[in-house]
Amino acid sequence: MPDIAYINGEFVPLQEACVSLNDRAYYFADAVYEVCTTFGGRLFIFDSHMDRLENSLRGVKIEYRVDRPYLAGLMEEGMRRAGYAESLVYLQISRGSGLRDKRFPAGPERNLVLTVREKRPIPPERFRQGIRLILVPDERWAHCNYKTVMLLPNVLAHQAALDEGKDDALFFHPEGGMIYEATSANIFLVHGGRLATPPEGPKILSGTVRKYLIDLARRNGLEVDEHPINRTDLGNADEAFLTGTTTEVLGIVEADGAQLGDGHPGPITRRLHGIFRESVGTAPVEYGE
Amino acid sequence: MPDIAYINGEFVPLQEACVSLNDRAYYFADAVYEVCTTFGGRLFIFDSHMDRLENSLRGVKIEYRVDRPYLAGLMEEGMRRAGYAESLVYLQISRGSGLRDKRFPAGPERNLVLTVREKRPIPPERFRQGIRLILVPDERWAHCNYKTVMLLPNVLAHQAALDEGKDDALFFHPEGGMIYEATSANIFLVHGGRLATPPEGPKILSGTVRKYLIDLARRNGLEVDEHPINRTDLGNADEAFLTGTTTEVLGIVEADGAQLGDGHPGPITRRLHGIFRESVGTAPVEYGE
Repeated sequence: MPDIAYINGEFVPLQEACVSLNDRAYYFADAVYEVCTTFGGRLFIFDSHMDRLENSLRGVKIEYRVDRPYLAGLMEEGMRRAGYAESLVYLQISRGSGLRDKRFPAGPERNLVLTVREKRPIPPERFRQGIRLILVPDERWAHCNYKTVMLLPNVLAHQAALDEGKDDALFFHPEGGMIYEATSANIFLVHGGRLATPPEGPKILSGTVRKYLIDLARRNGLEVDEHPINRTDLGNADEAFLTGTTTEVLGIVEADGAQLGDGHPGPITRRLHGIFRESVGTAPVEYGE
Repeated sequence: MPDIAYINGEFVPLQEACVSLNDRAYYFADAVYEVCTTFGGRLFIFDSHMDRLENSLRGVKIEYRVDRPYLAGLMEEGMRRAGYAESLVYLQISRGSGLRDKRFPAGPERNLVLTVREKRPIPPERFRQGIRLILVPDERWAHCNYKTVMLLPNVLAHQAALDEGKDDALFFHPEGGMIYEATSANIFLVHGGRLATPPEGPKILSGTVRKYLIDLARRNGLEVDEHPINRTDLGNADEAFLTGTTTEVLGIVEADGAQLGDGHPGPITRRLHGIFRESVGTAPVEYGE
């Protein structure tokens, strides 16, 4: 089977999958989600995603008991049916279905939807070249630490970057100049050999790979500060990179209209990406050092 | 036929209606909508809704040509099939369908969905008793003047009000104390015989009934100021009421923990509701003056 969806208790081809028009995700953005990836065909840091899923559910008051063995089994069954070497597994839980009414639905029924698509890794050239980012004022809602489908501002910011011939956008606070994150990835700066990334807070989705990488960097002798960063810090950085489930460790070579470093992914970025690849058991990108 | 939906070019019972899992409304909140009502079986201020729909589409950069005769015809056909004396017609336009990717889809295909439900008017007792509101910090995104499905904060605020035994919530700015609007209605204050309502801006959805009522009030010799209002103004008001498509003119008798006026919908509120009812050709609520 090609791309696949699990919905209403059965697996169907993704292109044919349909959800009720009465699903609150559809008209109220009343849902949370996770995107898991595989390395070597196995789900990567599954528990980290489930921790965050529980946090998101709690944050927006959707009562749903996360049964990890059940969900892992469902994902693996979907992956088996789809048959890809590497998969991207999307899981969404909405507050339920019902005629459009803001009050929480009375029943305990939540809508669980799962999709399995083929993972298309970022091409090595893109890792080697690095990416260019614009800055956009953060116009999102107040609880971006919960992974909800309230993503229209992310869509608009990402498209604005593409329209300017860049790759993605960074959200910043128009008054304080604080930089939060990209439209689906966290940011790290490198300055004087130390890493810095914005601390957890309502404007940062605490990335599973962000945590994973902080830990990996520290175990490899790098110091990582979690503190607020602003536009000036970004401009003064020796290097910068994004982290994310599909992003891995991706160098930033231009941001806010200015070149970063020498215009290529920096040595610490490349080194960390190598360490990351090694730790997940996949072949490193040849950066041609 | 009972409640009805128009989707993918055909009318189906609402309960059976399903949309593609790949609709961007479902996973990105990438859609705008309108809710029209009828009086005497006819669509009320349809053009006002279409003006706003065009503004919302433009605001979030969804390219869709609003063909008013076509949409009016579709709504009327749905109303005819549903067969209700009075209907509530919901119209949603999403940016389209496709595998989950933030970039705008290449094709010109938008998803139009329409539902027709029976309009259940607010009972006269509720108009007579008035409603009680809590205040909640405004945690919505920056563009509430566009009528998008980014409604999770509205859902949470409305439920918070119900959980406190009240009827709805007013969004206010936690720093300035400015009051914006309720979760699906605009607010008016009455002070010394004059009306005041917050001006149009990014935190106010410019209500079709808000505009209609401002015009109606002025033609009936009342002065209406559109200027920012804050918590203090609310506390000092002689009367206050909400306006909205299903709300009409609904007195507020308690807000922010304090009684307003004498705890009953005030005389100007009652008079305006009477004028409103007369202008739309429906029987007035007997307020028992």
